[in-house]
Amino acid sequence: MTNRTIEIYDCTLRDGAQSEGVSFSVSDKKKIINLLDDFGVDCIEAGNPFSNPKDMTLFNEMKGVKLKNARLCAFGSTVKGDHPEKDPGIRALLAAETEVVAIVAKSRKTQVIEILGISPEENLGYIEKSVSYLKSCGKEVVLDAEHFFDGYMEDKSYAISCLKTALSAGADTLTLCDTNGGTLPHEVSRITAEVKKALPEAKLSIHCHDDCGCAVASSIASVLAGATQVQGTFIGYGERCGNADISTIIPALVLKCGLSCGAQLTKLRHTAKQIAEISNVRLRHNHPYIGKSAFAHKGGMHIDAVRKLPSSFEHVSPEAVGNSRKYLVSEMSGRSTILAELEHLVPDLKKTSPEVELITAKLKEREFEGYQYESANASFELLIKKELGRWKAPFNVIMYKSSDDFPAPDGEQQSSAMIKIEVGGKTELSCSFGNGPVNALDGALRKALLAFYPQVDSMHLNDYKVRVVDLGKNTDSKVRVLIDSSDKNSSFSTIGVSCDIIEASFIALVDSYEYFLSKEL
Amino acid sequence: MTNRTIEIYDCTLRDGAQSEGVSFSVSDKKKIINLLDDFGVDCIEAGNPFSNPKDMTLFNEMKGVKLKNARLCAFGSTVKGDHPEKDPGIRALLAAETEVVAIVAKSRKTQVIEILGISPEENLGYIEKSVSYLKSCGKEVVLDAEHFFDGYMEDKSYAISCLKTALSAGADTLTLCDTNGGTLPHEVSRITAEVKKALPEAKLSIHCHDDCGCAVASSIASVLAGATQVQGTFIGYGERCGNADISTIIPALVLKCGLSCGAQLTKLRHTAKQIAEISNVRLRHNHPYIGKSAFAHKGGMHIDAVRKLPSSFEHVSPEAVGNSRKYLVSEMSGRSTILAELEHLVPDLKKTSPEVELITAKLKEREFEGYQYESANASFELLIKKELGRWKAPFNVIMYKSSDDFPAPDGEQQSSAMIKIEVGGKTELSCSFGNGPVNALDGALRKALLAFYPQVDSMHLNDYKVRVVDLGKNTDSKVRVLIDSSDKNSSFSTIGVSCDIIEASFIALVDSYEYFLSKEL
Repeated sequence: MTNRTIEIYDCTLRDGAQSEGVSFSVSDKKKIINLLDDFGVDCIEAGNPFSNPKDMTLFNEMKGVKLKNARLCAFGSTVKGDHPEKDPGIRALLAAETEVVAIVAKSRKTQVIEILGISPEENLGYIEKSVSYLKSCGKEVVLDAEHFFDGYMEDKSYAISCLKTALSAGADTLTLCDTNGGTLPHEVSRITAEVKKALPEAKLSIHCHDDCGCAVASSIASVLAGATQVQGTFIGYGERCGNADISTIIPALVLKCGLSCGAQLTKLRHTAKQIAEISNVRLRHNHPYIGKSAFAHKGGMHIDAVRKLPSSFEHVSPEAVGNSRKYLVSEMSGRSTILAELEHLVPDLKKTSPEVELITAKLKEREFEGYQYESANASFELLIKKELGRWKAPFNVIMYKSSDDFPAPDGEQQSSAMIKIEVGGKTELSCSFGNGPVNALDGALRKALLAFYPQVDSMHLNDYKVRVVDLGKNTDSKVRVLIDSSDKNSSFSTIGVSCDIIEASFIALVDSYEYFLSKEL
Repeated sequence: MTNRTIEIYDCTLRDGAQSEGVSFSVSDKKKIINLLDDFGVDCIEAGNPFSNPKDMTLFNEMKGVKLKNARLCAFGSTVKGDHPEKDPGIRALLAAETEVVAIVAKSRKTQVIEILGISPEENLGYIEKSVSYLKSCGKEVVLDAEHFFDGYMEDKSYAISCLKTALSAGADTLTLCDTNGGTLPHEVSRITAEVKKALPEAKLSIHCHDDCGCAVASSIASVLAGATQVQGTFIGYGERCGNADISTIIPALVLKCGLSCGAQLTKLRHTAKQIAEISNVRLRHNHPYIGKSAFAHKGGMHIDAVRKLPSSFEHVSPEAVGNSRKYLVSEMSGRSTILAELEHLVPDLKKTSPEVELITAKLKEREFEGYQYESANASFELLIKKELGRWKAPFNVIMYKSSDDFPAPDGEQQSSAMIKIEVGGKTELSCSFGNGPVNALDGALRKALLAFYPQVDSMHLNDYKVRVVDLGKNTDSKVRVLIDSSDKNSSFSTIGVSCDIIEASFIALVDSYEYFLSKEL
């Protein structure tokens, strides 16, 4: 294949903000703009300055900010009527002062008639006027042809005439939008090729939605058929089933189709993780390329094979996209899995060592109780050290008490905790209010530990995750708590399981401190 | 397109069990077999009786069980050596007594040499022996050609000769496996077509993994190119990035490609939800067809359009796959969204009513505090009723106290709670131990309420979800709790937000009882 260069157009901040549960503040958007620019996308559609006042604030704050790689784009609509210069939407677009503007126009005849309530010819006139006016103002103009694929299947010539009109009026890019996400890749491919043939001079862009679970494939198919720009969102954010996920499209184009783009693939996972963090969305563990399980191997035979010949179960090198290989620890694991995991902890072990047997048995017992060490590396390491007798507890908990009182006893905070610990024969009792019981317990435990270990000051709890686990037995459900902590150098995860959310949290909390202190000592 | 019939081969219980975090008990597997059979898949690959003793137990328990639609299949390997009848793996396959057996054979030359450590010719001989022997035992035999696409690209004629050997030995189905998930749909399509041409008499099956995010598209492409069986897992369970998701493939084949299969599409969402429930995996809200956001509309203009012309933003009818349309309530919502949501609660409202304004403002305020009503229908309904003054509290909470004590004060349970409520001037004080603080609070509140409302006996808390919400401000993080409850007739969701997990839980808990009682009164 040729070494064509493909332009990446990111809509995370506009279409992505339509995602259920996603809502960006102005400062979130600025952080994401920097991440996308750093990663190397070509164009960032940052918002709709007319319909959303927060977005106008963003554009104002971005004025004069120099980006390294990306051009900023404001999104709006074509205008009904003959005077785009008077339209408040168009004026907002211009007031955003971005290099690029994208305007959406309907290209399906039924939509024009039934939703806009105008004639197909009027629609063409409005497209012409809107594009010409924006071009006369010196903008790079992207025309998003909404409902294009449905429109093409309904009335090919009308859909094409919408594109032609925009092109003659000076539009720089014509975007073929699969707005309801219903077109399958082979149709996207065929129609893109036909459009390319009809308008050979046009720069075509593809904009897909994932309602068929095929948005990535459709985008790739469109590029292979002639589109030179891909629109999508990071992690596939977007309304309903989401937009085409550019974090999945880019590596396929670069690593598999011999195409190039400005993005730095090795920053892919980092960028995705940061965006997920800012959006407060948990990255799916099985997300292609970027998920933490994307290169994780579980079955014993698979692990054997991947160690001999990585391409057996890895289609690309994990490092190429900033990810890494992982061996999962579970009851399905053969001995060699557990050994692979133990290797860097206890270098002197062999596959036949009784220690491997011991850990395997302990692991099964714990999984039966509801533990899962796949996402709790620190607790797993502690488990091994404790089982192998390579462990000296840095502290012991004598008692704790956590309370929640309504109305709040101090008139402010409802949660309080007290704890008594013992270190080398000395005890320490301390207590704390907190903005929740785990925070109060953390506060009390931290205070008690500081009397012995000043270094705990540099360690912090970052994230706290809870899940109800139904073990399918006749007993009560259990709660599984995962805590992510970090110190200056690294982050680590611990787990606690109990019927009692406070106890489960406390187990994971104690593991965090034990793990941190065992590294430090 | 022709009205070909496609066979659905489900691997949820075998390949799907390789999913990180998924682990099926024998009784889980039996429940899922019934669901799949009810839904109408043709073949269920239920496990590997040799490598997994739990699976052998399953097959033993399934002996004599009549399924309505599906044939059961046991999974194993081709045998190294000339005596398959003596091989413990093959013997376990036969001992499973299933109608169908699937055996995997490597079809990529490098794999055969480097991983199996045998010659390519030996491999062909073992395929021949294994298939012939299983056929002589009266089995329907599926040959899974592992690493087929990589193998074909490496050495076309060797890959084909693996298939030919199996076919001559009597294999009923030849499965083209994209084992590392690295092949893009256009290559899958091309290679399937070439294989079909080389072996026109063979029944071809396609087995994809989602490492490129294209497994669904590749499976569809392969069917369009000649495969007549699709292998996949429900919800895309599977190692790394998962297997091809048959819950996404089936509706595309039936609703978009004019093909038919035995599955009952209207049971799609129900089946997926039940399987997710049993696997203890939360169904992605944006999952194509089956996710609760798959047909959810957020932006005001989108909602307007979908009400006028559903195909604007719905590629298929939600009802066709057992799902339903949903309007999301959020600060991005225009008035018409909120009105659409209010319509069935308060029928006498208009778009211009001051009440709509009031609710919109309240909603923005609550979202600012961290509330999200998208997944908490009952709390949203309560909010509206309270704001509109159409609310009379069924009870008031005077005080509550929840404690966790280690060691446990009663020697058993660490959590306890007491609560005092007031109903019509009368108060009731009650207390409860519990297997966690929420359970203790629920116990105490329930006991107190029973003194006034015996009907609360029929209501239950089903699920409890917690998430740390970082509002990106300089304040502390908040915790968002969602509780799913149900009574005899329906299920409903409530939400609580606070810095304190106990308080957040208590708010959601009180909402559940208030909602339930307001329906009942």
